[in-house]
Amino acid sequence: MKYQRPMRVGLVGLGTVGTGVVRLLETNRELISRRAGRPIEISAISARDRTKDRGIDISGFQWFDNMNDLARSDAVDIVVELIGGSDGPALSLAQTALGAGKPLVTANKAMLAHHGMDLARLAEQAAIPLKYEAAVAGGIPVIKGLREGAAANEIAHVYGILNGTCNYILTTMEKAGRDFGDVLKEAQALGFAEADPTFDIDGIDAAHKLSILASLAFGTQIDFDSIDITGIRDVTADDIREAAGLGYKIRLVGVAENGEDGLFQRVHPMLVPVGHPLAHVDGSLNAVVAKGNFVGSLFFQGAGAGEGPTASAVVADLIDVARDEYGDPFAMQVAQLAQQPKADSGKRAGRTYLRFIVQDRRGVLAEIAAAMRDAGVSIESVIQRGAQQDGSVLLIIVTHHSAESAIRQTLDALSGSDALIAAPMVMHILD
Amino acid sequence: MKYQRPMRVGLVGLGTVGTGVVRLLETNRELISRRAGRPIEISAISARDRTKDRGIDISGFQWFDNMNDLARSDAVDIVVELIGGSDGPALSLAQTALGAGKPLVTANKAMLAHHGMDLARLAEQAAIPLKYEAAVAGGIPVIKGLREGAAANEIAHVYGILNGTCNYILTTMEKAGRDFGDVLKEAQALGFAEADPTFDIDGIDAAHKLSILASLAFGTQIDFDSIDITGIRDVTADDIREAAGLGYKIRLVGVAENGEDGLFQRVHPMLVPVGHPLAHVDGSLNAVVAKGNFVGSLFFQGAGAGEGPTASAVVADLIDVARDEYGDPFAMQVAQLAQQPKADSGKRAGRTYLRFIVQDRRGVLAEIAAAMRDAGVSIESVIQRGAQQDGSVLLIIVTHHSAESAIRQTLDALSGSDALIAAPMVMHILD
Repeated sequence: MKYQRPMRVGLVGLGTVGTGVVRLLETNRELISRRAGRPIEISAISARDRTKDRGIDISGFQWFDNMNDLARSDAVDIVVELIGGSDGPALSLAQTALGAGKPLVTANKAMLAHHGMDLARLAEQAAIPLKYEAAVAGGIPVIKGLREGAAANEIAHVYGILNGTCNYILTTMEKAGRDFGDVLKEAQALGFAEADPTFDIDGIDAAHKLSILASLAFGTQIDFDSIDITGIRDVTADDIREAAGLGYKIRLVGVAENGEDGLFQRVHPMLVPVGHPLAHVDGSLNAVVAKGNFVGSLFFQGAGAGEGPTASAVVADLIDVARDEYGDPFAMQVAQLAQQPKADSGKRAGRTYLRFIVQDRRGVLAEIAAAMRDAGVSIESVIQRGAQQDGSVLLIIVTHHSAESAIRQTLDALSGSDALIAAPMVMHILD
Repeated sequence: MKYQRPMRVGLVGLGTVGTGVVRLLETNRELISRRAGRPIEISAISARDRTKDRGIDISGFQWFDNMNDLARSDAVDIVVELIGGSDGPALSLAQTALGAGKPLVTANKAMLAHHGMDLARLAEQAAIPLKYEAAVAGGIPVIKGLREGAAANEIAHVYGILNGTCNYILTTMEKAGRDFGDVLKEAQALGFAEADPTFDIDGIDAAHKLSILASLAFGTQIDFDSIDITGIRDVTADDIREAAGLGYKIRLVGVAENGEDGLFQRVHPMLVPVGHPLAHVDGSLNAVVAKGNFVGSLFFQGAGAGEGPTASAVVADLIDVARDEYGDPFAMQVAQLAQQPKADSGKRAGRTYLRFIVQDRRGVLAEIAAAMRDAGVSIESVIQRGAQQDGSVLLIIVTHHSAESAIRQTLDALSGSDALIAAPMVMHILD
């Protein structure tokens, strides 16, 4: 055996995932030791509150009030960062650990989305691992799937359901026919959504993850700022019902493509055909599809969050390091990662779902149809539901394959119209 | 960069997959060089026929008539074995390569199922990689998913659709309502099935793959000989139609579980509920489900065979080696792998589909129902179709949750009965 000395872990952050890592390393101790070729043991911990009851015994671990002292401690071979947040203490800890020559495992997608390239450079300079399987899609080994499993391929696109909270809300709306606000409140009460749900429901968390997947898939630098992000706040029970009638489910999908035009990255609610694997991804599951020029489409599905699955990914990283099986964090040296311009989404084309809420009066459909004709958008389906109690009319239009610029031109033409009671809802349809 | 010198590959076997590897390394040359940190180049080849037109240019590679000379050549850093067959030339080549200290990449599941432990010991002794991602489920990185991605987990079970030919035949029977023999002939004509289809349709190929997955999942020695194997020859168009009416699809599923009783491994046609992800695995796709005690269920799906997908997996292995990211072939030292006894399948329990073809006369249902009652098997559904043209009657029975030993007792009791025109068909139902 190459190593037999235990690998001593300094764990920072004892929230859900941190507690899960303690439990997992204890529960599967013997198995992990066999698989890793040596024991993996927590030696030191640091968290905000030393005395809080977490249902685990932390008395055997050396406590550090200052997490950066933990990172520098001789009692720690590898640091696990599970405190979260893109900057502040997490970033300071990451920099301290890597700066001190300590391997780092993190689940922090926000930090990687904003500082991943800088941290990867630090890891490279010190020739030590920076691992982050838990940062994307929880327990699903999709970082490994792209970095290694699909490494022989030029990847055309990667997309997926990357936020369990949004997927839980959308599938609950679907099953119960209930509206967004109502389901969100319930999800918060049940602990499936945060008290401040912005990062989840506005798509920011999914975008953090997408930026990491895109880098691995395309060999490009992480570029979070160029992602177009739309969350699920404006998806209504009407949308879900009408989409179902047309043969679709609505999912928050993060999509990244790399083409001659540049890098396209978008997080947005999409209509997914019921026959597509993503349409069967229910509740808090996550799933990722990647298409390579030799392997074709790969599909990965599993639990995208939660104590057990996320801890599983963190400890998988620890095992890789204990086995001495690791390399450049983003699959190649940072200097080798291309810097791609942002692609012009107007040149993209596809079918689109448009939902209008309009006045119940003559000429409204004619006005909308004329705007579409003038922009060169042709119509596949129209559903008009008779006036609602408030006198408004729900009008759903599905377009044929059209350039997104033409859809925008249609909406611009209609933007001043007093026929529209509310801003139109635009959702693209997944092929 | 750790390495910049090209990694020189000696490729043995230029069938579909070998040709695919040549094409892939050429097409994605620059990308692979960036990802691997060094170029990966074929330097030498060997195959049965030097002059056959394969649509690729092999004039730039050193030709070896003797593949073992290739394995020992100083012009070769790593050997790729793509000739197939559990023994004979493939095994000789593998032993020669590993014995000469040359890393080995293989897609040969038959060889691993029979000699995997011996080959892994050779690799261990020489501290060199033995990699085989392409041996199971084609392009899907499921070896990596189990060996590394799920490594932190105790795995309760692993199961999946592991043979694309069988899946193609079953889904074609399903769509067209046609019988097995008819669809097999067409599949052979189209090149989706071999001229001698035994290994595929009798479940042997799937069992080879299952034995490898079980070893990785459970940390046990490969034990191909203890797998119970039933192929798809006896699945009829009637079975598929009746199963569909009951809400199931029929798939050839390999299942492995590790319990206190020992290791259970079986390949057999199963009824899969239409809501289960495996029910949507159509055509030549493969899929694998693994359930871990922390991660929950992971689901992997993709192309299970073919030039591109299999070459993708072979080259992923080459990239891992070029990156110096590899370790024990079966996730731990062979001496650490447990030797599990074969579990008694009679103690397993579940719901079962039974298809009888019986005489059209009074008392037959009573006789069968009595045999089931006497064995303690209770009945969930019965479908009896009026007499066929030949006077026989199709009788489908779905049992409630019952011990498999009780199902066997039922069939034993009926085995002498002249009411049965043909041997009953027994298929277990996936939960």
